[in-house]
Amino acid sequence: MNETKGPAIPTTIRYKPIGILRSEHRELSHIPIQPVYASGCKGEVEIFADYEEGLQDLEGFSHIYLLYHFHEAKTTRLTVQPFLEDALHGIFATRAPCRPNPIGLSIVRLLERRNNLLLLDEVDILDGTPILDVKPFTSRFDNRRDTQDGWQEHIAESTAQQRGRRQAMQVSATNAKRNWKDLL
Amino acid sequence: MNETKGPAIPTTIRYKPIGILRSEHRELSHIPIQPVYASGCKGEVEIFADYEEGLQDLEGFSHIYLLYHFHEAKTTRLTVQPFLEDALHGIFATRAPCRPNPIGLSIVRLLERRNNLLLLDEVDILDGTPILDVKPFTSRFDNRRDTQDGWQEHIAESTAQQRGRRQAMQVSATNAKRNWKDLL
Repeated sequence: MNETKGPAIPTTIRYKPIGILRSEHRELSHIPIQPVYASGCKGEVEIFADYEEGLQDLEGFSHIYLLYHFHEAKTTRLTVQPFLEDALHGIFATRAPCRPNPIGLSIVRLLERRNNLLLLDEVDILDGTPILDVKPFTSRFDNRRDTQDGWQEHIAESTAQQRGRRQAMQVSATNAKRNWKDLL
Repeated sequence: MNETKGPAIPTTIRYKPIGILRSEHRELSHIPIQPVYASGCKGEVEIFADYEEGLQDLEGFSHIYLLYHFHEAKTTRLTVQPFLEDALHGIFATRAPCRPNPIGLSIVRLLERRNNLLLLDEVDILDGTPILDVKPFTSRFDNRRDTQDGWQEHIAESTAQQRGRRQAMQVSATNAKRNWKDLL
């Protein structure tokens, strides 16, 4: 493919929070690792008043993407040991927070919209997290069949459930803290 | 839910491109609106050498998320008329580029990794786009059943295909340009 012509790409890209997430997850060590392991974990997003108009018709969607800033991520690691297994993988082959750009992505369940408040279930996000964007999730655009899931292929669903829903399994605080420190 | 305690959220969040996308999409007016309408549209991501180590094991995944900066988005609109229908909706109930934070999200097919190059299909992204993050897509984390898809529910698949794959339908340049100008 030919070299791209055109202006040089920017060295810095600036965004601003459009809202803030509130949840009962106040300990990094007890947050489920993904929304699919967070059934019953409620939360809400307050979209700042300036942007409320942009929420029109969002309430028709049962699931939404939240894009957010991992504000507690302090370092960048290029290889990590994810929660689901004990082997090292490249950071881009995992969903761990300690990424070059610490942007989080969660597909959460939208229970209700009350003006600028989004009431949510299946929340795997730390209380106080700055929200960058909200997008609708749709079957038409976002489901994929016949995927190959890389290193996750050989992880049994029972193992994934056990490791993924950390709050419910009452992991030892020591283990949990060690893991989170490794991933931030 | 109680008020969040803790430090004030930042007013500005800074990210840096980790790579650049190259595609045959050089005209905004001819880009399919989503990857599901972009079968056969090849492209590649060059991840900058500093981050290549982070790609380890990504090649085992058939689909990946690309998060990127809509570098051609010049304005913010809080309500837009999306491509799939002629009614106005809040920007957060659409995937249009003219968002408060113009972050794009595409689930593309990963054909092959060659060191720091990701060879892709189903690309709906403009040539020269700065890449912010790459994440693996997995059935386990990312598919959802029984979704409610809001305003998209009443759009027939045939209509979506026709409107979604703009390149193939040879829309009139006038119409296409009008649409893109409205969404940037």
